[in-house]
Amino acid sequence: MQRIEDLPTPSVLVDLDVLESNVRVMQERARAAGLKLRPHAKTHKSPEVGRLQLAAGAAGLTLAKTSEAEVFASLGFEDIFLGYPIFGADKARRLLALSDRILLAVGADSVDGAKSLGDVFHAAGRRLPVRLKIDCGYHRVGVAPEAAVAVATRIAELPGIAFAGVFTHGGQGYAGRTPEEVAEAGHLEGRVVAAAADAIRAAGLPVGEVSLGSTPTARAGMSQRGVTETRPGTYVYNDFSQVQLGSCRLEDCAMTILATVVSSPAADRAVVDAGSKTLSNDPLRPEGPGHGAVLGRRSRLARLSEEHGVIAVEPGEAFAVGERVRILPNHACIVSNLHDSLVAVRNGRVEGRITVAARGCVQ
Amino acid sequence: MQRIEDLPTPSVLVDLDVLESNVRVMQERARAAGLKLRPHAKTHKSPEVGRLQLAAGAAGLTLAKTSEAEVFASLGFEDIFLGYPIFGADKARRLLALSDRILLAVGADSVDGAKSLGDVFHAAGRRLPVRLKIDCGYHRVGVAPEAAVAVATRIAELPGIAFAGVFTHGGQGYAGRTPEEVAEAGHLEGRVVAAAADAIRAAGLPVGEVSLGSTPTARAGMSQRGVTETRPGTYVYNDFSQVQLGSCRLEDCAMTILATVVSSPAADRAVVDAGSKTLSNDPLRPEGPGHGAVLGRRSRLARLSEEHGVIAVEPGEAFAVGERVRILPNHACIVSNLHDSLVAVRNGRVEGRITVAARGCVQ
Repeated sequence: MQRIEDLPTPSVLVDLDVLESNVRVMQERARAAGLKLRPHAKTHKSPEVGRLQLAAGAAGLTLAKTSEAEVFASLGFEDIFLGYPIFGADKARRLLALSDRILLAVGADSVDGAKSLGDVFHAAGRRLPVRLKIDCGYHRVGVAPEAAVAVATRIAELPGIAFAGVFTHGGQGYAGRTPEEVAEAGHLEGRVVAAAADAIRAAGLPVGEVSLGSTPTARAGMSQRGVTETRPGTYVYNDFSQVQLGSCRLEDCAMTILATVVSSPAADRAVVDAGSKTLSNDPLRPEGPGHGAVLGRRSRLARLSEEHGVIAVEPGEAFAVGERVRILPNHACIVSNLHDSLVAVRNGRVEGRITVAARGCVQ
Repeated sequence: MQRIEDLPTPSVLVDLDVLESNVRVMQERARAAGLKLRPHAKTHKSPEVGRLQLAAGAAGLTLAKTSEAEVFASLGFEDIFLGYPIFGADKARRLLALSDRILLAVGADSVDGAKSLGDVFHAAGRRLPVRLKIDCGYHRVGVAPEAAVAVATRIAELPGIAFAGVFTHGGQGYAGRTPEEVAEAGHLEGRVVAAAADAIRAAGLPVGEVSLGSTPTARAGMSQRGVTETRPGTYVYNDFSQVQLGSCRLEDCAMTILATVVSSPAADRAVVDAGSKTLSNDPLRPEGPGHGAVLGRRSRLARLSEEHGVIAVEPGEAFAVGERVRILPNHACIVSNLHDSLVAVRNGRVEGRITVAARGCVQ
């Protein structure tokens, strides 16, 4: 069996013990809260990890794009929610083909968007389950809570659409500078989405799932009444941002990058062979310097080029050319998207590969 | 023939007329300056574009990683310089195999790094051409100019190494806030690398290529005496940063992203289906807000999630759900790395695909 020390660098490693523990713990939390867990598979994009989540009890997977659902459906996944406002007849035709094979639901936050899908399903004598996205304060997509009843009612009346519930995402939790601010985003998710569900029901429309979730807000969000489903994603691998946000401990981080110091041109600077093509330029959340932590050191990656990771060497530390280091990335999900496969390790040995089957599926 | 309007979104488009013109113009500049052009192929990672560059007169290609050279060699490219301080016996064995098939040279900025490669070549009775990287003020990799003679001499004495020249990269040009500051980085490239070459020659060591280059500094750098080669990369596609830096005009940008407005939840906000998985989070250079320009509009992409591009809608502009827009990315090279292929277009029609054959080659 291959040793980690013999891997080429840079390599993205996933510790299977940590991964399996993360899957188990989140599933147990959801079970204890009486919620379905429908993990966002954007973090791994991988059939191997998705199967672990389903085996642990997940109700299905969440994804964003039509092409991601096509990849996962082709790999045997049968229950997918695309939590994204998909638009257009071309995507609708692909969703229709998918609906022949799997249990599929999608998100919407506008009548025009839902209608562009419903028209195609209606022409085929079918109905597409659609959940309405509610904006709980992240101000990305989603209808304002006060518009929820009106938009839900109009979407539910569209031919080819089956109104299937509401969902939200408290992404503002990633800006939380204290555990209280992060938790407040989770509480808000729950209050807003449950209130929207209540209002829509009061208007006479049945509401299926009432769904929320992100990894930082997962605990707080789960405790809200009226919620039926949670959709965290990053928890499977965790990352430096999740540590900073208090979502996990350092030892709960399953993904690290094995890199080699290729240059050590000055006492305060060393360069590893992992740059933005390996780690991405995604920032540290909620805020902070650099592009990743060097495990066991105080020094951080201060700047990235595509193939260069420049370590700002802290006083008292040194990095020799040829030395190997492990990097904890700022954002695990986007690292997955940069690689065709990750290296699965356990107890310091290589156990196999994790296929990033849906890498690059943006359409 | 497929129309652009019928493409699924998001799609990365490359205008072939603009691409071909960019290739021609840079080659003509290098020819007029009496320099070899060895374009950095990291921008396209594509055999189709590399062949265009060679057909126009390029001397060979520049790349960074061993796996990139393996891909290009397998596609018939025969002259590659890896302008990167490669380290280690495992990489050296792969470089040795490549050297059987193509003309290969690599960079180094340390004796330890060069020795790790030379040992393997020496054991095989071979010598690897190595160019010394000089730091001209970018402070990433490279030896300080005052150390050039000493390090070059020691590298040249290593078994298995053939000392083959010097090279530099004035990446600080990307921080230039005026055309003068950008040009000064190019002048500095030339002065520093030519002086290092002179000093090494004076110490009795023959110097092969004297190489510099980046797209912003290309013009200024070419005018320096003693230089033999220039290595710009981004000029083939150009991008929003190059426009800001004054390297090109808006009409010289070959790469745009076709995206669909999927959500328009507020008067000051619209969301397109191209996020950081399509555009990356790379910043605008030399500085500036946002993650890309919306062509024909004043509004910019203000923030990105993985699949969401949030447009900050300027007063007087509006974006309707379903509307298609074209986005000029901040950084073309990293966009290429996110996609398996790009769509080649000409006069508004789809002509074929540009294969990003070396996408994801970080090892």
